[in-house]
Amino acid sequence: MFRPPPLLLLLLTRCPAPRRLLSASRQGQGQGRAVGSVLKTPKGTRDHHPAQAALRERLLGSVVACFKRHGAAAIDTPVLELRETLMGKYGDNAKLIYELQDQGGELLALRYDLTVPFARYLAMNKITNIKRYHIAKVYRRDNPATTRGRYREFYQCDFDIAGQFDPMLPDAECLKIVHEILSDLQLGDFLIKVNDRRILNGVFAVCGIPESKFITTCSTIDKLDKVPWEEVKNEMVGEKGLSPEAADRIGEYVQLHGGLDLIEQLLQDPKLSQNKLAKEGLGDVKLLFEYLTLFGITGKISFDLSLARGLDYYTGVIYEAVLLQQQNDHVEDPVSVGSVAGGGRYDGLVGMFDPKGRKVPCVGVSIGIERIFSILEQRVEASEEKIRTTETQVLVASAQKKLLEERLKLISELWDAGIKAEILYKKNPKLLNQLQYCEETGIPLVAIVGEQELKDGVVKLRDVATREEVNIRRENLIEEIRMRTSQL
Amino acid sequence: MFRPPPLLLLLLTRCPAPRRLLSASRQGQGQGRAVGSVLKTPKGTRDHHPAQAALRERLLGSVVACFKRHGAAAIDTPVLELRETLMGKYGDNAKLIYELQDQGGELLALRYDLTVPFARYLAMNKITNIKRYHIAKVYRRDNPATTRGRYREFYQCDFDIAGQFDPMLPDAECLKIVHEILSDLQLGDFLIKVNDRRILNGVFAVCGIPESKFITTCSTIDKLDKVPWEEVKNEMVGEKGLSPEAADRIGEYVQLHGGLDLIEQLLQDPKLSQNKLAKEGLGDVKLLFEYLTLFGITGKISFDLSLARGLDYYTGVIYEAVLLQQQNDHVEDPVSVGSVAGGGRYDGLVGMFDPKGRKVPCVGVSIGIERIFSILEQRVEASEEKIRTTETQVLVASAQKKLLEERLKLISELWDAGIKAEILYKKNPKLLNQLQYCEETGIPLVAIVGEQELKDGVVKLRDVATREEVNIRRENLIEEIRMRTSQL
Repeated sequence: MFRPPPLLLLLLTRCPAPRRLLSASRQGQGQGRAVGSVLKTPKGTRDHHPAQAALRERLLGSVVACFKRHGAAAIDTPVLELRETLMGKYGDNAKLIYELQDQGGELLALRYDLTVPFARYLAMNKITNIKRYHIAKVYRRDNPATTRGRYREFYQCDFDIAGQFDPMLPDAECLKIVHEILSDLQLGDFLIKVNDRRILNGVFAVCGIPESKFITTCSTIDKLDKVPWEEVKNEMVGEKGLSPEAADRIGEYVQLHGGLDLIEQLLQDPKLSQNKLAKEGLGDVKLLFEYLTLFGITGKISFDLSLARGLDYYTGVIYEAVLLQQQNDHVEDPVSVGSVAGGGRYDGLVGMFDPKGRKVPCVGVSIGIERIFSILEQRVEASEEKIRTTETQVLVASAQKKLLEERLKLISELWDAGIKAEILYKKNPKLLNQLQYCEETGIPLVAIVGEQELKDGVVKLRDVATREEVNIRRENLIEEIRMRTSQL
Repeated sequence: MFRPPPLLLLLLTRCPAPRRLLSASRQGQGQGRAVGSVLKTPKGTRDHHPAQAALRERLLGSVVACFKRHGAAAIDTPVLELRETLMGKYGDNAKLIYELQDQGGELLALRYDLTVPFARYLAMNKITNIKRYHIAKVYRRDNPATTRGRYREFYQCDFDIAGQFDPMLPDAECLKIVHEILSDLQLGDFLIKVNDRRILNGVFAVCGIPESKFITTCSTIDKLDKVPWEEVKNEMVGEKGLSPEAADRIGEYVQLHGGLDLIEQLLQDPKLSQNKLAKEGLGDVKLLFEYLTLFGITGKISFDLSLARGLDYYTGVIYEAVLLQQQNDHVEDPVSVGSVAGGGRYDGLVGMFDPKGRKVPCVGVSIGIERIFSILEQRVEASEEKIRTTETQVLVASAQKKLLEERLKLISELWDAGIKAEILYKKNPKLLNQLQYCEETGIPLVAIVGEQELKDGVVKLRDVATREEVNIRRENLIEEIRMRTSQL
């Protein structure tokens, strides 16, 4: 099976270096300096230094490659939305929405996620069929936990399939995508939990919970991955007002997890099999597992009745990927990382925007890129290696004085030939300084012009790593640089 | 001289098609539908449909390639900044800044450009030396003129060099970059105007303008590219309170433009040569032209004393690129497009953020990507060709019923091998519908599984354009698809 080379290997040059780049990045983030005017980024936000930007570019590149492999098109929507577009879509979380000041004109807010803007986009343009990805920043006035990769401004990476199709085919592809991305990134072992809102609703119904308490019960159950059943039960009875008997009945169900066998078992369950919604859900999850078997990925999938997902808008299959353990033993200070992807089916959201309430069934997945990024970041820091932040192939240098003109002429030729090249911005730089610059920034080649070389019509090409130097005829230089750097 | 193939050729598939994609994109942008709740994007903002997102991705790709060719690293800063970071940096334009509502905590605003956040970033992290690019959205509560590519949310593409270097070397590279980008994009003929704030200040001084009126006089002069001298003079005299004689003296200077000869002439100018600032500026612009001569680009550079640039923070060389004429005769409705890039030296901005006022000299350029995008967009629409919005190499299809399992098994193999592949989300799709999907979306190959092929251990590979079909042994399929699509 094809697997691209590990991301980190692609990122690292061989030159050992102090943890300058990423360590520097930890300083001053979201915190003030002792200056008169406050010199900081807003709470819960951060700058990306070059090393971080390079790491993020490659991480996002890997995710985009997967989305494109599955035939998705890109779209973009504004960071700003009308406030009314966002209102009534996020339940209690609406208080976390950033609102813009009323400066005249429309009342605006910053988007909270990419899903509601996507639904607005579909309804507004009457699109009933699209497979799209969208990678962009979203905003939440949340309590930041920056060491765990939780920020107030953060990227979401969403893949969604909208349209009326045969059951579970798009849903299965979403899970395949999560599996591919987490495998490619080599984050360690992971598990994708799958459930269905219809099954949960069926469970609640047969346990005697009134329909008005379904959603709030969902959010309590969602805590089962963090706290033991006893606590969850206490919340159900104490805060949510369920009877202890009903809670116990629910408990019997939501602590179940397994595979196709469990699905079959529940399809035979005397109470649950009588519930129309639960039966539908179980039938679909069974079909989903059959497709996932064909994809060969059921080894990492668990049908887990405790998975509930926080958001209101899910209507069918839901899923969430968690890292099972961290395989980075050499990190001194491991980040605590749980869920790294999640999503599900939301068949009603677009209809909330359509004037006639026309529904467009949707299913999608969001990759938890910030958590993944913070794992990779810590891993790079621990590796004592250094990320190249530029792609420069060659430094145009001179060993003697008064050769600025020649350097400028040569670098201009290289740029026009598409070669990535730099010079030092000094009239008469010392050769040692020029070589040092290459060592520091990972530039592999130096093209040295000198009096003798000019007379002979050659350029001295130096390999920074091996220190080997060889004279190349000027007309062959571009080809030689291309050849030598094509492996990089 | 190496030139990458024209951007548009890369973008277009050969299949003629109605202007569906981009035309659709014009609908509903920033405007409501006849619905109860308003279904629109905020004023001056827009969604990017897949065809637009694909066009933008390639345009930005071309710009980024140039920035990387010149050894720039990427950074990112938050969309949100503290209000006080932005205050006092934009003069009158401060009223165009989007402010966030006070929801408790810090007072925030949306960034107005990328330059002030860059200066804040340098000061906050005590960085005195960096070559960086930054491509991101900025926000201005301006009057949108969307047909000219002017939006309230728009991308800026900035390249800046910060640090203490020998004069004019980074400045010359910025101009080389503008030249490369505008040449590569084949937008038609262009001219890069160059001036220096010190020369303008010198001109004002020798014409008897009080220093307090320098900046306001600059902004009047900046209109010379749109209105005739007489009007500019009237504004100077009537609104800005200059004497008619002083205005006439300015007029003699600011209507000059030329090359090295003009610089020499002004260096001999009896009045101007006595002004220290003007002399410094003229000396630097002369050096700049010498470097640009070595780069071979002076043919498109004009030393133009009427160029003033609006922003307060420039301290030295300034420049602006304009399209001279539009070479898209076949566009019915040509966009009016003027300036497509601009920038200059701002040596004082970082010091405004540093607690000790330490200066970091900076020079940079901003590519007017929205205007360029609107030109490319109209050109694509006029071409009656269609942009591929996905990169799918092969559709996995079947000619008979009951082959869903086989399709899923095959596509899973292809995905795992890194092939970009799709299936229709139907259990038993008609072959005609599958082929039609390929025609519509530009997928070049179809891998067809059928009873006989399965028995024979082959897959039928169909070329969508030529309709040729050939049986490929299953174990060779991946290699065959890679080979056939490597040219695309």
